[in-house]
Amino acid sequence: MILREGKLKKIQSRAVMEHNLDYTISLLTHTPAALNALLRDLPEIWTLRNEGEKTWSAFDVVGHLNYAERANWIPRAKSILQFGETRAFDPFDREGQSREIQGKSLGQLLDEFARLRSENITELRALNLQPKDLERRGLHPSLGVITLSELLATWAAHDLTHLHQISRIMAHQYQDTVGPFSRFLGVLKCAGHSATA
Amino acid sequence: MILREGKLKKIQSRAVMEHNLDYTISLLTHTPAALNALLRDLPEIWTLRNEGEKTWSAFDVVGHLNYAERANWIPRAKSILQFGETRAFDPFDREGQSREIQGKSLGQLLDEFARLRSENITELRALNLQPKDLERRGLHPSLGVITLSELLATWAAHDLTHLHQISRIMAHQYQDTVGPFSRFLGVLKCAGHSATA
Repeated sequence: MILREGKLKKIQSRAVMEHNLDYTISLLTHTPAALNALLRDLPEIWTLRNEGEKTWSAFDVVGHLNYAERANWIPRAKSILQFGETRAFDPFDREGQSREIQGKSLGQLLDEFARLRSENITELRALNLQPKDLERRGLHPSLGVITLSELLATWAAHDLTHLHQISRIMAHQYQDTVGPFSRFLGVLKCAGHSATA
Repeated sequence: MILREGKLKKIQSRAVMEHNLDYTISLLTHTPAALNALLRDLPEIWTLRNEGEKTWSAFDVVGHLNYAERANWIPRAKSILQFGETRAFDPFDREGQSREIQGKSLGQLLDEFARLRSENITELRALNLQPKDLERRGLHPSLGVITLSELLATWAAHDLTHLHQISRIMAHQYQDTVGPFSRFLGVLKCAGHSATA
């Protein structure tokens, strides 16, 4: 019982003290335009090539971001507000983007990302979350108890992990072309692959 | 002598076969707008914080990119064309951005990056480089013989290594805020730091 209280206290302090929702929303607002400026109309060497068998291209990553906009963040936030810890989130399908990308161009995926993200931020703002709402807890299928604060912070960090991944995938295409300069390029040494969130 | 020819052949094949200069220029053209869309008007938590003592913020990285636009790529390309292997490049000052950033806002640095990059691409195009020019060799102060092709490919990959770094610096600010989700976020596990190029 003491252990349980200790755990509870830890969850509460990590939720309340560090999360300014405006910072999260600001970052979430910037990402679609950043990916659009980086990727739209680039030659396919940069956007359609991956890092080897069973890895993703930048195109695949944008599809994954779109799938997460539909299936992950807002549905899970609503699940926390509605069910709390009494019902675990649906597991997130890490290959869910396969349906998102079928028959689409990168330009279409980038347009969709901008639209879905904008709609979701509107929906997030409409929830009018207060600091004590951010402490509310939900049940992640593999992580166990998490807070709404942690879920929403992860939404922003998930953008960054995939921007990080995209820059690594793109650099990979030039790993031989740069010759001996590869020694200086940290991105070519990165093994920070993301799992599903 | 056989060894030397073997080495020469290796340098030639890595220069000629893999480098399409249009791909490089296309990426170089996209980067300023991508960084602008990502960073401009973000709260300072994302742009001015670093990863700990003696590390860079996103602001510092943009300063470094500006310094490299002035001191690295075009001057070195011209050095190769003018002096070949007879004169080593001036060493690149990894702290050269300290002069670039002094008294400036992030908005000013982003404006400068867009301007410097645009001028440098114009200058690169004016060199009217042909495939055999890309094979030309220069002398790097620590790497030894490198080709013009490798230098120009590194210019593009250097953008990517710093986009990769910026996304990692930004994610670092939320490493505690995401709570247990950190397990899924590869960017929080990345140790792919770049050295000077």
